[in-house]
Amino acid sequence: MTPTIGVSDVLARSRRAIHPAITAAIGRLAPEIRQVATYHMGWTDEAGNAVEAPGGKGIRPTLAILGAEAAWAEPELGVPGGVGIELVHNFSLIHDDIIDTDTERHHRPTVWSVFGVGRAIVAGDALQILAHQVLLESPSPHAAAASAALADATAAMIAGQADDIAFERRRDVSVEQCMAMCAAKTGALLGCAASIGAILAGAPDATVGALRDYGRHLGLAFQAIDDLLGIWGDPATTGKPAGSDLRQRKKSMPVVSALAAGGPEADELRALVLGPEDAALPLPPLETDDVERATFLVEACGGREWTAVRAKANLDAALGALERVRLSAIPHRDLADLAVYVVEREF
Amino acid sequence: MTPTIGVSDVLARSRRAIHPAITAAIGRLAPEIRQVATYHMGWTDEAGNAVEAPGGKGIRPTLAILGAEAAWAEPELGVPGGVGIELVHNFSLIHDDIIDTDTERHHRPTVWSVFGVGRAIVAGDALQILAHQVLLESPSPHAAAASAALADATAAMIAGQADDIAFERRRDVSVEQCMAMCAAKTGALLGCAASIGAILAGAPDATVGALRDYGRHLGLAFQAIDDLLGIWGDPATTGKPAGSDLRQRKKSMPVVSALAAGGPEADELRALVLGPEDAALPLPPLETDDVERATFLVEACGGREWTAVRAKANLDAALGALERVRLSAIPHRDLADLAVYVVEREF
Repeated sequence: MTPTIGVSDVLARSRRAIHPAITAAIGRLAPEIRQVATYHMGWTDEAGNAVEAPGGKGIRPTLAILGAEAAWAEPELGVPGGVGIELVHNFSLIHDDIIDTDTERHHRPTVWSVFGVGRAIVAGDALQILAHQVLLESPSPHAAAASAALADATAAMIAGQADDIAFERRRDVSVEQCMAMCAAKTGALLGCAASIGAILAGAPDATVGALRDYGRHLGLAFQAIDDLLGIWGDPATTGKPAGSDLRQRKKSMPVVSALAAGGPEADELRALVLGPEDAALPLPPLETDDVERATFLVEACGGREWTAVRAKANLDAALGALERVRLSAIPHRDLADLAVYVVEREF
Repeated sequence: MTPTIGVSDVLARSRRAIHPAITAAIGRLAPEIRQVATYHMGWTDEAGNAVEAPGGKGIRPTLAILGAEAAWAEPELGVPGGVGIELVHNFSLIHDDIIDTDTERHHRPTVWSVFGVGRAIVAGDALQILAHQVLLESPSPHAAAASAALADATAAMIAGQADDIAFERRRDVSVEQCMAMCAAKTGALLGCAASIGAILAGAPDATVGALRDYGRHLGLAFQAIDDLLGIWGDPATTGKPAGSDLRQRKKSMPVVSALAAGGPEADELRALVLGPEDAALPLPPLETDDVERATFLVEACGGREWTAVRAKANLDAALGALERVRLSAIPHRDLADLAVYVVEREF
């Protein structure tokens, strides 16, 4: 789905505000690391030549800027926060691609598959710490609080990633554990993105808390939609092969909730996705016929419906969080529009 | 070499001061990550059972505590700095072992070889950010400055590691480039270790700068000794196979300075270590006979002498830096003794 005019404009404006700062930050990296980072960002090809970058939508830095404005501050105050969030997000993508041995992201070879595992680890490490250099050097008197909030969100995200890895070796992931993993892996950083601008602006705790809750719920809604797209999404728009999550036997929200439904179809799904009770996990990828059958079973067990309801409930909770405090009207509306846009993509 | 009574006591006192704080910090990690971290620290075995840990000497946290005391503050002020430094140091060890595909450290299997690359990457990431959580939560009004100094040192260390990786694919590493890489990879974090206690104590810039320079020179001296031990060290004490650095064709200080000496012996060494001019780097490990010949050639070209002189010169520079400002006498003496001890190990 193409963003509505309003959301399009808001995202484009944020990208313009963030671009010079993130370019300057990446420019500080040592040449060996910078080459890897600019490739990952889509700014250069494998040889280091500049390329026309389509670029991401920039939802995370936009949240940082809107968060500052919603807390009655100038948008510029949110910029170091947006840069920090974007650097941490990209650190996590580079490391996650190594961990998942993914060879493609946004239709391009992943960093580790181009530059090797060693340079990919180092580039991710460099982006993680660069985020804090940028924040701690920002002139805001609240820079240390923003850096601490980003550190806490990063630690939660890393813990979520560790759980995600552990889930591959487990047969017994509950719906609660799945939701807690998503809250950590996706929700924490979006919660920080939405509140870090307000932190840098020195906003009251209630405002910071409301924006953080908005971002956390938005993250859970986002993940629910991502999990639906991972099974039913159109490969042309998701950039992933059809049914890729089921092929990889991923314990995503639709699968875990379907398994929890009980009954003969859930038993059949469990046997397909987890293999026999005594099978050592992780198993090899599912065959195409089995992916099709598993897709049918997840829906038959209510996993698709359950996940769609979670997406909608978290969108409502995100919008509700914005009503808890008095926010500046226009950024308040933009935050609400952005949440609806994120959840309605592809639907 | 066993530490002298004075250095032994200083190290033991610091370990006692740091231990509860680092245990508490590691205890905050999510269980999946904590298991990996406590294994790496030598506190638990692969199954997670507590083991009798001989433990490291704790030179880095000792520097943090002595730095606080040298700046006329209570040793306790240096503790969060020592914990942060130790966490960053261990993050780098875990990631370096993946990058170098090393399977053993201190006579134990490395983290990635026990828990897999994915969990090792995540554990390193978690320790890196935990360092900043600990620092930014410390009650010192100078916690943000300490966190920024640690971030800068970490960024330098990561850039040094990137250069080290790049050196493997290069034939033309100069002595200056080799020293700059060591200054970044080893010197930056030791410079931060020696000064972070003074930063937390709010010491004047001149004091912080003198302690940082002491630590940086100590780091270069330390690396020079490490490079000598990597060629001539006794495997029983280094824990590495004899001649392991030459076997791996590592462009360490003795090798790079020997290559720069010129003449027929340097040419022979270049052909041995780098192969023919058109060989694609990196090459497979050297055979034992070639390691012996290369060891002889490095010494014949003056690489051993040159590196020993660098170690001594940097030790002198480290001790000289301590004389630039007025430091508290006892920690001043302890810092000097510690530097001599670090450089004299095994000699």
